[in-house]
Amino acid sequence: MSEFEESGIGEECGVFGCVAAGEWPTQLEVAKVLTLGLVALQHRGQESAGIVTSNGVNPPTYNTLKGMGLVNNAFPPENLLKLRYGNLGIGHTRYSTTGISELQNCQPFVVDTLHGKIAVAHNGELVNAAALRKKVMRHGVGLSTSSDSELITQLLALTPPMEELDAPDWVARIKNLMHETPTSYSLLVMYTDVIYAIRDPYGNRPLSIGRLVPISKLHTAGAGEGETEGWVVSSESCSFQSIGARYYREVMPGEIVQISKHGVKSLSIVPRPEGDLPAFCIFEYVYFARPDSIFEGQMVYTVRQRCGRQLAIEAPTEADVVSTVPESATPAALGYAQQSGLPYVEVLCKNRYVGRTFIQPNTRLRQLGVAKKFGALTDNFTGKRVVLVDDSIVRGNTISPIIKLLKEAGATEVHIRVASPPIRFPCYMGINIPTKEELIANRPEFEDIAGYIGATSVRYLSVEGLLSAVQGGIPPLQGKDERINTKASRSVGHCTACLTGKYPVELEW
Amino acid sequence: MSEFEESGIGEECGVFGCVAAGEWPTQLEVAKVLTLGLVALQHRGQESAGIVTSNGVNPPTYNTLKGMGLVNNAFPPENLLKLRYGNLGIGHTRYSTTGISELQNCQPFVVDTLHGKIAVAHNGELVNAAALRKKVMRHGVGLSTSSDSELITQLLALTPPMEELDAPDWVARIKNLMHETPTSYSLLVMYTDVIYAIRDPYGNRPLSIGRLVPISKLHTAGAGEGETEGWVVSSESCSFQSIGARYYREVMPGEIVQISKHGVKSLSIVPRPEGDLPAFCIFEYVYFARPDSIFEGQMVYTVRQRCGRQLAIEAPTEADVVSTVPESATPAALGYAQQSGLPYVEVLCKNRYVGRTFIQPNTRLRQLGVAKKFGALTDNFTGKRVVLVDDSIVRGNTISPIIKLLKEAGATEVHIRVASPPIRFPCYMGINIPTKEELIANRPEFEDIAGYIGATSVRYLSVEGLLSAVQGGIPPLQGKDERINTKASRSVGHCTACLTGKYPVELEW
Amino acid sequence: MSEFEESGIGEECGVFGCVAAGEWPTQLEVAKVLTLGLVALQHRGQESAGIVTSNGVNPPTYNTLKGMGLVNNAFPPENLLKLRYGNLGIGHTRYSTTGISELQNCQPFVVDTLHGKIAVAHNGELVNAAALRKKVMRHGVGLSTSSDSELITQLLALTPPMEELDAPDWVARIKNLMHETPTSYSLLVMYTDVIYAIRDPYGNRPLSIGRLVPISKLHTAGAGEGETEGWVVSSESCSFQSIGARYYREVMPGEIVQISKHGVKSLSIVPRPEGDLPAFCIFEYVYFARPDSIFEGQMVYTVRQRCGRQLAIEAPTEADVVSTVPESATPAALGYAQQSGLPYVEVLCKNRYVGRTFIQPNTRLRQLGVAKKFGALTDNFTGKRVVLVDDSIVRGNTISPIIKLLKEAGATEVHIRVASPPIRFPCYMGINIPTKEELIANRPEFEDIAGYIGATSVRYLSVEGLLSAVQGGIPPLQGKDERINTKASRSVGHCTACLTGKYPVELEW
Amino acid sequence: MSEFEESGIGEECGVFGCVAAGEWPTQLEVAKVLTLGLVALQHRGQESAGIVTSNGVNPPTYNTLKGMGLVNNAFPPENLLKLRYGNLGIGHTRYSTTGISELQNCQPFVVDTLHGKIAVAHNGELVNAAALRKKVMRHGVGLSTSSDSELITQLLALTPPMEELDAPDWVARIKNLMHETPTSYSLLVMYTDVIYAIRDPYGNRPLSIGRLVPISKLHTAGAGEGETEGWVVSSESCSFQSIGARYYREVMPGEIVQISKHGVKSLSIVPRPEGDLPAFCIFEYVYFARPDSIFEGQMVYTVRQRCGRQLAIEAPTEADVVSTVPESATPAALGYAQQSGLPYVEVLCKNRYVGRTFIQPNTRLRQLGVAKKFGALTDNFTGKRVVLVDDSIVRGNTISPIIKLLKEAGATEVHIRVASPPIRFPCYMGINIPTKEELIANRPEFEDIAGYIGATSVRYLSVEGLLSAVQGGIPPLQGKDERINTKASRSVGHCTACLTGKYPVELEW
Repeated sequence: MSEFEESGIGEECGVFGCVAAGEWPTQLEVAKVLTLGLVALQHRGQESAGIVTSNGVNPPTYNTLKGMGLVNNAFPPENLLKLRYGNLGIGHTRYSTTGISELQNCQPFVVDTLHGKIAVAHNGELVNAAALRKKVMRHGVGLSTSSDSELITQLLALTPPMEELDAPDWVARIKNLMHETPTSYSLLVMYTDVIYAIRDPYGNRPLSIGRLVPISKLHTAGAGEGETEGWVVSSESCSFQSIGARYYREVMPGEIVQISKHGVKSLSIVPRPEGDLPAFCIFEYVYFARPDSIFEGQMVYTVRQRCGRQLAIEAPTEADVVSTVPESATPAALGYAQQSGLPYVEVLCKNRYVGRTFIQPNTRLRQLGVAKKFGALTDNFTGKRVVLVDDSIVRGNTISPIIKLLKEAGATEVHIRVASPPIRFPCYMGINIPTKEELIANRPEFEDIAGYIGATSVRYLSVEGLLSAVQGGIPPLQGKDERINTKASRSVGHCTACLTGKYPVELEW
Repeated sequence: MSEFEESGIGEECGVFGCVAAGEWPTQLEVAKVLTLGLVALQHRGQESAGIVTSNGVNPPTYNTLKGMGLVNNAFPPENLLKLRYGNLGIGHTRYSTTGISELQNCQPFVVDTLHGKIAVAHNGELVNAAALRKKVMRHGVGLSTSSDSELITQLLALTPPMEELDAPDWVARIKNLMHETPTSYSLLVMYTDVIYAIRDPYGNRPLSIGRLVPISKLHTAGAGEGETEGWVVSSESCSFQSIGARYYREVMPGEIVQISKHGVKSLSIVPRPEGDLPAFCIFEYVYFARPDSIFEGQMVYTVRQRCGRQLAIEAPTEADVVSTVPESATPAALGYAQQSGLPYVEVLCKNRYVGRTFIQPNTRLRQLGVAKKFGALTDNFTGKRVVLVDDSIVRGNTISPIIKLLKEAGATEVHIRVASPPIRFPCYMGINIPTKEELIANRPEFEDIAGYIGATSVRYLSVEGLLSAVQGGIPPLQGKDERINTKASRSVGHCTACLTGKYPVELEW
Repeated sequence: MSEFEESGIGEECGVFGCVAAGEWPTQLEVAKVLTLGLVALQHRGQESAGIVTSNGVNPPTYNTLKGMGLVNNAFPPENLLKLRYGNLGIGHTRYSTTGISELQNCQPFVVDTLHGKIAVAHNGELVNAAALRKKVMRHGVGLSTSSDSELITQLLALTPPMEELDAPDWVARIKNLMHETPTSYSLLVMYTDVIYAIRDPYGNRPLSIGRLVPISKLHTAGAGEGETEGWVVSSESCSFQSIGARYYREVMPGEIVQISKHGVKSLSIVPRPEGDLPAFCIFEYVYFARPDSIFEGQMVYTVRQRCGRQLAIEAPTEADVVSTVPESATPAALGYAQQSGLPYVEVLCKNRYVGRTFIQPNTRLRQLGVAKKFGALTDNFTGKRVVLVDDSIVRGNTISPIIKLLKEAGATEVHIRVASPPIRFPCYMGINIPTKEELIANRPEFEDIAGYIGATSVRYLSVEGLLSAVQGGIPPLQGKDERINTKASRSVGHCTACLTGKYPVELEW
Repeated sequence: MSEFEESGIGEECGVFGCVAAGEWPTQLEVAKVLTLGLVALQHRGQESAGIVTSNGVNPPTYNTLKGMGLVNNAFPPENLLKLRYGNLGIGHTRYSTTGISELQNCQPFVVDTLHGKIAVAHNGELVNAAALRKKVMRHGVGLSTSSDSELITQLLALTPPMEELDAPDWVARIKNLMHETPTSYSLLVMYTDVIYAIRDPYGNRPLSIGRLVPISKLHTAGAGEGETEGWVVSSESCSFQSIGARYYREVMPGEIVQISKHGVKSLSIVPRPEGDLPAFCIFEYVYFARPDSIFEGQMVYTVRQRCGRQLAIEAPTEADVVSTVPESATPAALGYAQQSGLPYVEVLCKNRYVGRTFIQPNTRLRQLGVAKKFGALTDNFTGKRVVLVDDSIVRGNTISPIIKLLKEAGATEVHIRVASPPIRFPCYMGINIPTKEELIANRPEFEDIAGYIGATSVRYLSVEGLLSAVQGGIPPLQGKDERINTKASRSVGHCTACLTGKYPVELEW
């Protein structure tokens, strides 16, 4: 368990789109594909969910379904019925960053324009949102929500002014938008019969394309283009398995991809300012993404394992066993064990129901802290020196009771090894990080962090070590030929702003 | 029971506003006043309800509460808490005209502008909404709902373009809006610390102002201005009693009234085109309003009673008893009885729970029709000739089973007397009337309506008779000195478009 | 509005049963008939509702549906589906007397016995419940609820001990039960393919039988026995109209009636102790029953009207108009007007939504009291002397604000006339009456009740007057030939315990 | 993931009790302890939950809270308030075995007896329930549910007949009950101020006692008896950590333990028939219990690991990696890896949200089967021979799509190793096992199970191997000094009926 989970730190959202291939009306049941796709992105946002489908004819009929909570609560089966005639659609699962959770902030955002409706789903945060809001409002537009998504739709509708005669040039409008705001956004824009899939020039947020093939041919090489049943586009490729899609490729930083029943077409790549590197969020690897997702040609699980190995190289430990704080730190812990040669054991058993308890603990129970979520598997560590690998430490107040639990249950030493560097700076690109003052790495206690949290020792992965693990620079394990995707679209730059304070773009305040 | 009730015909909405007088923060609990005010307007809309409060400082904090269904379902007490610091606010109760009922159409509509937020609540329907939507969208604005209220807020924000330096001249913007669209709207616009209460130049929808005084002085003459606790503004004055407010006056057709903690101030009256009369919806008298509301200086109940009396003059009947289809037709039935000298009795007992039954009737039960909602009070009419007064007949298929019930239970004759003229034309100003083809008055069956519905005879009130009842032209009852409000703001024109096809403004299609 | 309504005083419950006639399986959709029948009895209990159906074969399948709240909330349509194969069934709508409302107290109560399941629905309260509970428990039976219904089922199962060989003699068991407890109960007991309908020997609670005929023949004389589609049994006959049944007859005090697909059969009449009169609850006439129900051959509405007339005879008033506190007092008010010759007008308009408001009123709003539920129809009474008829006064604290409202709105005099005698004593037979101390008639204020409640004068109907109105002893109105059912099963005794303290049976404490 | 999880096979329930020590009223907030205790037992039943508290005085006030679904849904915080004065209480979490899930079957079951109320919570299934029901009903008792718990309460109340004078001898009654029915039950009976904790003579279901100590002394040796804050009793000791209790001891087979504010006292041990061994359900070790629970002095996790090791001894494999079907099979997989020396890797990533999807899959999505719940961690197994350890195979239709997924994703061989023997027989002691026909081990396909499910090979643990793993008979790992609890209450007999058809007691049909 990462402290991220405990602290409610999270992603801004997940986006998912689907277009049925071939002749319409389709048998694909696009609304079901969207729903299952969003369920697979549920870890990116649990506050609310929404989908909008279009029948794809001109003028189109759009149907919208939104609701609070998990996808399965938000979309009661009877309500899904009204979307059953969609031939394409986009969806969104939202993470609440403000604390105020209201249905009206639920995406996708749909607006009617002179030439019909557009729908927008957005993952990320516009670094210059405040200035853009002012610009739009100076134009006389009133904004009914505080969301970037409404702002994006109004920007798309506004510039340049629409002419009644000709259909709007959406690609030109999208390019305009991309010039107005450098980052961060992975965006789906649906108009009538097409979905535009867009990643900002820095590629800060992920976006991947998949191809729906007959289930019987899902994993075989033989399913040719002619057998394509549809196209999907998703924040993470982990969603492809659950709907029967094959991984196709990532949308590139700055790219505008058009997805229609005729297929996938790259329309343009909006460049970064000269000299700027891509800035894909490195915490997608460290914590946010599901381990079976693929970014830049590599599996997230494998990167996490490499982080653990690199950590073992940087911070070796005299100990008896290696273990994990379940569940997110497990790949790193296994990597640490592999590299160090120490045996991997489980020391904690997590009660998966306890997190949802509403009851107000009394003083007595509050003292138990996060430890009440775990049972100690004492046989595995009593009388032993334990290396406990976690993926990150944010405030430092959740690992502490776990260490206490292990020690009291018989561990002779507890060495904390963190598979990422200390977080020290805020994120302005969509991740909800505590204030600088709350971050343990900025507080005096950090000087003696081991003492503060009660560990025998504490060591973090270095920034260089993390980059090297992410960018493939660490040597393969002896006798292990790690499988590296040769078609890797690996970029050579990553955003490490929360670790280093070096932001990909200049921030104006 | 009017057929309006049975057919789901209804008003577009009710609006309600409240400003606490005197020093702020106030003890008035504005959110509670708004809630109770909306409960009293519940008959004008049961689909959804919303309120927005402002704390009235600059910049203000707005709090919004919206929900589906009746006011009491829409506003759970725990949610009301977050609005408790409001010093002023506006509310809205919505009637679904489209069949699609979604929270996002719920009013008031709030938008952020260059100079802060405005909130708008609207009763009515803009006759030129389609043209105005196009105009706004040509400007580059995307509209996220199909509601007139969003259109109004965008129009208010858009024209003229806002300057960053000076606060906007809202009154000028409201006048602009009123020149763009002639009718129909009764509108509340809240900005920071003030509510603007506006009625369209034709006065098509009602709007009244009340004064909150200490409860102990509610009905006494003595509560001077100095004892004012706040001001309220409401679609109907019937809401004043339930919150402890005194009737103050109506907003006049075309008037813009500013309501603040300093009091009520008339800012302007936008005139109608020369020669045009006011066009207050005559069906507010006939059916929509609650009988204890006051319009144009007269109580709705009394007007309905006069309709019954006029009907007795126009359509006298040889019969034994007069009765009503409960409950809305009762004043007219009592008026008919008074004028005719026939005894008034009750012949039907209504089961007030049956209307909410969800179960799908089988063939057997469907044959019972609306009659299953009524019990026959046979002792009162067996062997007798009954005059049954109803307030209106729309499709003609609900009165028929009632007549059958009475006849089979022993009535020797059933004479239907309708206290309004036949409805023949659609309404474009906010009332949800069936299509022309569905209206019984436009169908061949109307030729022999008595035969069609099984009545001994059927007679309607004439248009002239209705106007005369509404406008006070019928002679008082012998020995009855009817109390006419001397300060009556009675206009000399009413909209009878649904009866005559004469619309107050030219309609462009 | 009776103060009963305001005070939450109410009936113990309503019961309803239905057996399809002819060959089974039936097309009748018994579960729908039961549901609609319970909706028509909703005024007798709104806390919870339940139905149990049987397919009628041996051994039978019983299906149960229970839920909290109004019938329509308690029985979602999808849940009704599982009862669709029932050929007979019983239902219950419950009034909460304890304040604790739990699903487990919801009836009907079903228990499994050596010879299969019985289901019981009960209206009333056993006067010797405490002693009977002890008896059952001494036998070793644990009781899982505090309801009389469970007690009744266990008594039916217990005595005499069951033999495995022969089917139980239910009639003998029912007789045993009736000898154990004199009153009060109207009871439905379902076993496999038959419903037993039972009224206690004093006939304290009502129970009527109806016959389902083809809808087309509902009100014609022609539907012979051969056309019977089913039989229904109900606390009140008002439910018959809404399901298409004809009134057949009442179950007599002490009678056990067997209802099966073969028809209705009287099995036995358990006699009262010699000298005892029947004791049908007189408040069923005064307040509880729906006005279109028939008891003892007379319509409740007509009895209430007679109460009003008798009141006019006993307590004539010098006044200008007569009116009602809507809605339950209207028949009495119309009766008072008829007898006195004074004109009947409406003075109050009730907001039917206000009762359901959950919000906590503040001090200001609390002062408005019950008056906030009413609008004053001032035109009808300003400057006039008003006789205001109410059906009963219990605590005296609801009529007071209404009088204040009328006076402040311009009534020169307000004379309260109550169409029933003062309530002074508790009820032990199923009516939830406040404690003796709370009853206004037992408090010092009663000496000067007019002064206390602010009325010009207050007069009650006498006990003799009430009995005379109920028992038909008052002279018909001049020129009015009141229709008295010649087949009247009118009993000669009524329970007036709450008015006189004379209980039908001796109570042991 | 065990197929048990996928198939909805499960335990009958979990029980939990708590008594505050020392002076009453207590600060312990017993209702909160009960709630958290039940949350920790949630894996034993998710259908409904209930708790009953007693204030412990004579006569006591009992408060009950029940609800459908998970504990956190069943007990809204506002409802918990009404239980806040409890000094002791028992709770229950229920697993639906019948498919019909109704609130009335929710436990604990409370009945009123001649000497006051008793409450009963039960885990298990009475093997002779049918005969006992008949016996009770022959006595004249009607049973209102089909649950064993009601039956148990009525048996406790019934025999011997209660005397009014003296308080009942509950211990004698419990012994009577235990003589009437040999197994299976772990039972909590609450009466006024005491909880009786009972395990059937065969000890078929688990029951453990814990001691609440100050949190600060939870894991230290120093908290003496004097510092006891309360006592808890639970189906599994895993619940102790989350409420701050220390493991105390198990209730022994046949033991009746009295728990009061004065402490824990063993009252009696009802013996088994001579020659019979205990029969603790072996599937508690294999699948049902949480891995951090302790039975018979050993941790479940460790037993599962031993099963994996024994499996590696019995069924060694030529392969490259060992992995698990997450999550329940992980201890066995790690044991297999340890014993075999093969590296342990993760091959599957489970989407924990997918299980709650309500939407009806279309044909396309249905083909994906259970595989849509998993993402393949391809880097870890492509080109490799995989040993996949699962804990059990029931119907054989869930492992098959997982094998397909792995093979298609690049595994060259997939060897299934099952850490328990094939299930062949039904359970009559509380586990919901499919019919004999559905069990793969009884079907012809079992002959070629590897071919049927698509595996390279399939091997099961032998019954002897399982017993040896459970009873500690397998040799420790080289160099590993496994920690065996010296105070082990290890019984020498286990119920393996579902594997061998040898039932602990003779079953009469």
